[in-house]
Amino acid sequence: MMVPQWIIEKKRDGREIPEAELREFMNTYASGSLPDYQMAAFAMAVFFRGMTFNEVTVITDVMMRSGDVLDLSGLSRPTVDKHSTGGIGDKISIPLAPLVAASGAAVPMISGRGLGITGGTLDKLESILGYNTQLSTKKFLQVLEKVGCSIIGQTSRLAPADKKLYALRDVTGTVQSIPLIASSIMSKKLAEGARGLVLDVKFGAGAFMKEVGRARELAETMIQIGRNMGRDMVALLTDMNQPLGAAIGNSLEIAESIDVLKGTGPVDVTELTVALGAEMLVIAGVCENAEEGAAKIRGNIESGAALEVFAKMINAHGGDPRVVDNPERLGSSPICVEVLAGDDGFVSHVDADAIGRVVLLLGGGRRLSTDTIDHLVGIDGLIKAGAKVTQGEPLMRIHARSKNDVDAVLNQARKAVVIADVRPKKSPLILAKIGGKNGSKA
Amino acid sequence: MMVPQWIIEKKRDGREIPEAELREFMNTYASGSLPDYQMAAFAMAVFFRGMTFNEVTVITDVMMRSGDVLDLSGLSRPTVDKHSTGGIGDKISIPLAPLVAASGAAVPMISGRGLGITGGTLDKLESILGYNTQLSTKKFLQVLEKVGCSIIGQTSRLAPADKKLYALRDVTGTVQSIPLIASSIMSKKLAEGARGLVLDVKFGAGAFMKEVGRARELAETMIQIGRNMGRDMVALLTDMNQPLGAAIGNSLEIAESIDVLKGTGPVDVTELTVALGAEMLVIAGVCENAEEGAAKIRGNIESGAALEVFAKMINAHGGDPRVVDNPERLGSSPICVEVLAGDDGFVSHVDADAIGRVVLLLGGGRRLSTDTIDHLVGIDGLIKAGAKVTQGEPLMRIHARSKNDVDAVLNQARKAVVIADVRPKKSPLILAKIGGKNGSKA
Repeated sequence: MMVPQWIIEKKRDGREIPEAELREFMNTYASGSLPDYQMAAFAMAVFFRGMTFNEVTVITDVMMRSGDVLDLSGLSRPTVDKHSTGGIGDKISIPLAPLVAASGAAVPMISGRGLGITGGTLDKLESILGYNTQLSTKKFLQVLEKVGCSIIGQTSRLAPADKKLYALRDVTGTVQSIPLIASSIMSKKLAEGARGLVLDVKFGAGAFMKEVGRARELAETMIQIGRNMGRDMVALLTDMNQPLGAAIGNSLEIAESIDVLKGTGPVDVTELTVALGAEMLVIAGVCENAEEGAAKIRGNIESGAALEVFAKMINAHGGDPRVVDNPERLGSSPICVEVLAGDDGFVSHVDADAIGRVVLLLGGGRRLSTDTIDHLVGIDGLIKAGAKVTQGEPLMRIHARSKNDVDAVLNQARKAVVIADVRPKKSPLILAKIGGKNGSKA
Repeated sequence: MMVPQWIIEKKRDGREIPEAELREFMNTYASGSLPDYQMAAFAMAVFFRGMTFNEVTVITDVMMRSGDVLDLSGLSRPTVDKHSTGGIGDKISIPLAPLVAASGAAVPMISGRGLGITGGTLDKLESILGYNTQLSTKKFLQVLEKVGCSIIGQTSRLAPADKKLYALRDVTGTVQSIPLIASSIMSKKLAEGARGLVLDVKFGAGAFMKEVGRARELAETMIQIGRNMGRDMVALLTDMNQPLGAAIGNSLEIAESIDVLKGTGPVDVTELTVALGAEMLVIAGVCENAEEGAAKIRGNIESGAALEVFAKMINAHGGDPRVVDNPERLGSSPICVEVLAGDDGFVSHVDADAIGRVVLLLGGGRRLSTDTIDHLVGIDGLIKAGAKVTQGEPLMRIHARSKNDVDAVLNQARKAVVIADVRPKKSPLILAKIGGKNGSKA
């Protein structure tokens, strides 16, 4: 017999919980029979004591199986997905999925919406007129087979136990626990059914994990969970101290994604898209190594093949595919104002958090999950750390609904770009790679 | 505005919670508006992080004020109470209250029932025919004024928030936290309204706190809480490695208590009763120091004055006062069997836990709080550590309902008394005294 408080006490005292007991404890929670107060005490004990790789795999497995688990075995191509822990200006899923699909793998991607300063892939895609993020499973599989990629929203049947646990953690001070974060992400990602998974684990001021050590621990935990469940896993640790790309805001990020697919995107977004795509092709078994994968991805940018896949995916989702040739079809906000440098010097830092807050204030994000968002507002033309500027040169452009809205954020936007006398040391965008196909440490 | 998860996070991260926030958090819980899952997460964070003396005082104060707080200011004598953290054979409240009352202080004592291997003062008193532990507040005050002591049961109106929190801790693995134990005890004891409190904090195999260091920490925490709330506080750290006295079981412990009041009780029970009584008289301001207090207590044993007070207290509670002169009026169980030594040697150890379990098995305790108990069964004549024994000499007597019941425990009872070749080192019953009147370190 499983006695919940004995499980809690074992975790509290730092003893490993036998698999059968932990599985029953989690199943009892998933079925609604374990009181929230016992799970809350357990989660807090996990916060302090952590979990072994076996334990975190068990809870991930139970949460994954609490809802639908997709069966992608009928698809003709190898399946691979990417997950990012999220950051300001991170639109990489959007150019990445068509690029990997154009290169021969299938990308079944279930994405989320934005909350607070973090944007959401679904919100960005919905700035394309008609794009429907809610496909049936049947239609999702059809699009995957025909187009090679599909980006849809999470249904309530995907890992419902995770959804319930996350809501509980949110109000009990137990969000910031690496095993609980890792199992939450992985239970959803594994339910999608992809054979392999590439993780973009971000660190820095604009990321969920501020310290690189914590980001590495999170990456290693997710890799272990995936491997324990028979998936090929690789993670890149990437810098999120400044926003990714030059555009932040929904339709503006779609436009930038199209630029990436055309080969005219910002250097950082393109670099990371190519690197993640290369890893996905290796994981999927399409390419032998990352160099070969990167070459294939670049080829599908140059040939325009990936842009064509993107248009097909939009079309399959009911959206207007003409945006890929005419991004002005995305529309534009009434006001566009340049923010000018007040000093000469070098951009030493662009504060990702502050930029995220400016876009939220303009209406481009949600304060509460029930808020509606304005797809057209945001920032583009954002200058990057290391750039030389002279007084009066533009640092960014603000797209807003009204002059008042611009005035309300102008000071904050200008202060987000820090100008110094000396050129800052360049830090690499991709710090490290962890894991790899079949457990290799490439 | 108090946001519960921020309070939880502060505790989780080891930061002190501002008094106003903690007070509101606890008030919200006491009023039923804070969900149990938030309190459970908070309690687990307290388990790991502890509490400052200020914090633990705040939660004690809120729990104390969640119900009735007695006003004893109308009594003509100074008021003082004792609390023991509990142990096997601990019947000391019963002789102690009349002794202190006979010495000039008033003892308002609210006691509990037994659960598991630990006995309860109320259960013991109820082995006296007619003794009513449920007096109205008005009657309680009348008995205190007239007799000088009254031992009653806890009403549902005494610290109800503590009752609720204790039930939650019991099922969330958060019982074993010193600040939570200390605040639970003190919220009830302070609600009784006594001006001073003497603590008997036990350590050892038969105690709640196995290690003396943890017992000392608990004592110090309770002393700080009491002092922060304007009470005079002192604690004795006492050894609970072997049972207290020679009798364990309800009516048998009443008989032993009467022996103590007559001057014929076991040495250990008498010694601890005198020591605790002496401290109570000092705390109450009746005596200058513990030596004077001890002399007064001993005088009231020798004169028979305390025995008379005990009879009066029983009478005031509707019980049969003739038991003090004729303890056989308590009744006896059908079977009484001696347990004989199988070896020659010295008693090196009497296992308090095992003795407690034997009495529980005989029916003298409760497995569940809803069980009824048998007042007449138990053990008496229990040999003490250090005694010389020869094979065939009695180690104890078992009082039982049936021969079968005796057979079921006989082996366990015999093994509870460990016999060795050498006389064990004598360890003091009272290890240390902490605190004292007006914060002195007597």
